[in-house]
Amino acid sequence: MAYLEKLQTAINARQSLLCVGLDPDLARLPTHFPSTPDGAFRFLRAIIGSTSDFACAYKPNLAFFEALGPAGLELLQATLAVIPSDIPVIGDAKRGDVGHTAHQYAVALFERYHVDAVTVNPYLGEDALEPFLAHADRGIYVVCRTSNPGAAAVQNLPVQRNGETRPLYEHVALLVQSWNRNQNCGLVVGATAPAELSQIRRLTPHLPLLVPGVGEQGGDLVTAVAVHREDAPVVINASRSILYASRGSDFASAAAIVARNLRDAIRRAFPS
Amino acid sequence: MAYLEKLQTAINARQSLLCVGLDPDLARLPTHFPSTPDGAFRFLRAIIGSTSDFACAYKPNLAFFEALGPAGLELLQATLAVIPSDIPVIGDAKRGDVGHTAHQYAVALFERYHVDAVTVNPYLGEDALEPFLAHADRGIYVVCRTSNPGAAAVQNLPVQRNGETRPLYEHVALLVQSWNRNQNCGLVVGATAPAELSQIRRLTPHLPLLVPGVGEQGGDLVTAVAVHREDAPVVINASRSILYASRGSDFASAAAIVARNLRDAIRRAFPS
Repeated sequence: MAYLEKLQTAINARQSLLCVGLDPDLARLPTHFPSTPDGAFRFLRAIIGSTSDFACAYKPNLAFFEALGPAGLELLQATLAVIPSDIPVIGDAKRGDVGHTAHQYAVALFERYHVDAVTVNPYLGEDALEPFLAHADRGIYVVCRTSNPGAAAVQNLPVQRNGETRPLYEHVALLVQSWNRNQNCGLVVGATAPAELSQIRRLTPHLPLLVPGVGEQGGDLVTAVAVHREDAPVVINASRSILYASRGSDFASAAAIVARNLRDAIRRAFPS
Repeated sequence: MAYLEKLQTAINARQSLLCVGLDPDLARLPTHFPSTPDGAFRFLRAIIGSTSDFACAYKPNLAFFEALGPAGLELLQATLAVIPSDIPVIGDAKRGDVGHTAHQYAVALFERYHVDAVTVNPYLGEDALEPFLAHADRGIYVVCRTSNPGAAAVQNLPVQRNGETRPLYEHVALLVQSWNRNQNCGLVVGATAPAELSQIRRLTPHLPLLVPGVGEQGGDLVTAVAVHREDAPVVINASRSILYASRGSDFASAAAIVARNLRDAIRRAFPS
């Protein structure tokens, strides 16, 4: 099943747009777990078990696994194996490199770890993303407008084309639309930039969106929900606010409560 | 010793600007080695042994290691351990993500693998690179103008600022210059774009440059050498043309010959 179909099925089955980000930080594990990759595995397995009724996707953030060295990649494999097979996995890697190198990153993500979708960086252009785009059955979320405070210094630079001036992130959104011949592209747009999010949806009504930044980063849920379309879904990611809801022995139920509440807040944010 | 000083010492000791890229591809190993991570280790160890008189730096390309799964990261660790300690290592990872994630990537590269320098992506802005930039003793090469055919579609977009219009890559070069308060920034500029390389050197005379694209990609060596400055050195990378010079039992000596010839061609390209 292609990524988009798998995602839509998971959204419908759970009536949820919530994506749970998996950012294992050994320093923030429940206090009764050892600060080791094995402790992180037991933690993530319990988190997945307690949140899988509320999540339309899981998003492992590769940086947190890589920070643990080779054992962190074994942790990633073990974690992926306990995610229910009907829930799509977005490998959050933000990769971007020239074609023959991008090919190896695609091998790593799609053939070693078998993720359903990835995040990638647009700066190197279309041929650098081609090894990802060529996988018609996988989702390719291209970073467009990020949630960090300094994003605008590059992403909002005014670009002149055909007599019009647009911020760079709008130009990137239009480029990605033109790269979407396999109907597998989407965009990463942070909820902390609601005006930009609305404008990107106007420009590219048919691209799925991955929207981080609603949890600890405090982004705007109403706008994130307003840009959802059934054929171009929005997945709304929260990571730390769910994972680290409690460091006590109740961590899994605390995570489930935050996840359920966020799923419900997303539902309520829909225009009635 | 800070990265730049270590690099300058290696350049002077070997009278070489050649960086040898380490891109282990199991399908291209010498035919008498098994197509396994262990075969790749024996291959890379011999390549390093035979080229270390000619190389001022080694540049492991993380994609090729990651494509092998967790065992590939063990291969990376084993490979790093056999690089002579006076030759700096550039971890070619092109990472770029929001601050708390970038911090984890910096942990992976600097604290797990102990590389002397890294490549990173500018699209997310300064705060996303801060966890790298804060390491004053490491080198941070920011992707500016890449060597791939499609780079211009994004990197040459005309950006308007203060009444001037510049291609995006020039604007990125100027931004990186403004982020260089720790004197540890450099730029990645492909030798396949010699006009852009010269212009970037005019704009940012004090930034070290990492120049890929002279080997199989056919870039311009004369321009790459012309932009070298003793206080802002250019390192000229070749990967596949050296690594895969022969698949026979002579692979190590064949690699040494290509590396020595390229080092000598770089020397000859200096204006006399």
